[in-house]
Amino acid sequence: MPDVPESATSTRDAIMAATYRALCEHGYAGTSISRIADEFDKSKSLLYYHYEDKDELLADFLGYLLDRLEADLREDLPEKPRERLFGLIEKLAPASVDDEHLQFFRALLEMRAQVPHQSAYREQFERTDELIRAELTDTIKAGIENGDFAPVDPARTAEFVLATLYGVLERGVPTGDSESIQTAREELEAYLEVRLLEEE
Amino acid sequence: MPDVPESATSTRDAIMAATYRALCEHGYAGTSISRIADEFDKSKSLLYYHYEDKDELLADFLGYLLDRLEADLREDLPEKPRERLFGLIEKLAPASVDDEHLQFFRALLEMRAQVPHQSAYREQFERTDELIRAELTDTIKAGIENGDFAPVDPARTAEFVLATLYGVLERGVPTGDSESIQTAREELEAYLEVRLLEEE
Repeated sequence: MPDVPESATSTRDAIMAATYRALCEHGYAGTSISRIADEFDKSKSLLYYHYEDKDELLADFLGYLLDRLEADLREDLPEKPRERLFGLIEKLAPASVDDEHLQFFRALLEMRAQVPHQSAYREQFERTDELIRAELTDTIKAGIENGDFAPVDPARTAEFVLATLYGVLERGVPTGDSESIQTAREELEAYLEVRLLEEE
Repeated sequence: MPDVPESATSTRDAIMAATYRALCEHGYAGTSISRIADEFDKSKSLLYYHYEDKDELLADFLGYLLDRLEADLREDLPEKPRERLFGLIEKLAPASVDDEHLQFFRALLEMRAQVPHQSAYREQFERTDELIRAELTDTIKAGIENGDFAPVDPARTAEFVLATLYGVLERGVPTGDSESIQTAREELEAYLEVRLLEEE
């Protein structure tokens, strides 16, 4: 994540790609249907036909990201628990973020902050958190079973990793402090080394 | 944090307490100068006299929280490194949050998400992050020196703890999932036990 196709084939892909570009450029608060339409190559009426307002479109965008994350988990990540765990962490909170990523993560955190007021966002974020939590739990469990990892509590460790991934983003993304993102990411990996790989 | 006096003596204290109540009740987006004025017992013109707009008032509120946090660090926390570290964590991300805390943390995360667009907020959050980061670093350093803690890298460990504290909040506050807050907090303490207290 973010994993939105640059060249879109279907109408929905094209709308989602335009939404991604508008969020990177204008942030959440500055993004409107008309600004998304500005990024959209096909007939703008299509966009107004499909979505009532910005919130409906952005909730669909969050669902789209979730679908793509699910597809990545199925197809893109290694099977071996250790590689899978670190691959998932890199996908969700990359150690090194460029300006485009930073802008996009900013918009995502702004949307997440809207959750108490936007039930459509809430549902998508809750589903996303649950997907990641379950995936982390299963991966840690598989690693314990095959002897890669120490016998920790998979659910608790997964919950902590998920919280820490959000923390890595929340710490550095709003202020644009990419150095703190990198340090916290490295230290998360050091934690996992100590907790999962070296303990007995 | 949040640590705003309920019975206020000075005008500024009274404005800050009114701001706190308005944020808890209406969230960041729903808070306006006039809603803060509704929570304010003294003459409302005082409030309009002191602040140009909502953003100026809220930036001052963030500075006020920072001053109170600084005072707490001086007066309120134990001196011994181990107790001080865990006391600081409990102050910043309490293991158990009631509804009022949850509402208030929601408003704080909404304000933090505004940092890319509000330079007055940015400055206050950057100063707050820096204060906490420095305090964590010094406490870990002091614990290494007096033999309480294993010889970790104090700056890196502090950066990770700070990120994780944000993560604990970001994970559970927007969705109101206080169970995940508690689990992540407990696992943060387990991490510190392993990393700081048991290693050699």
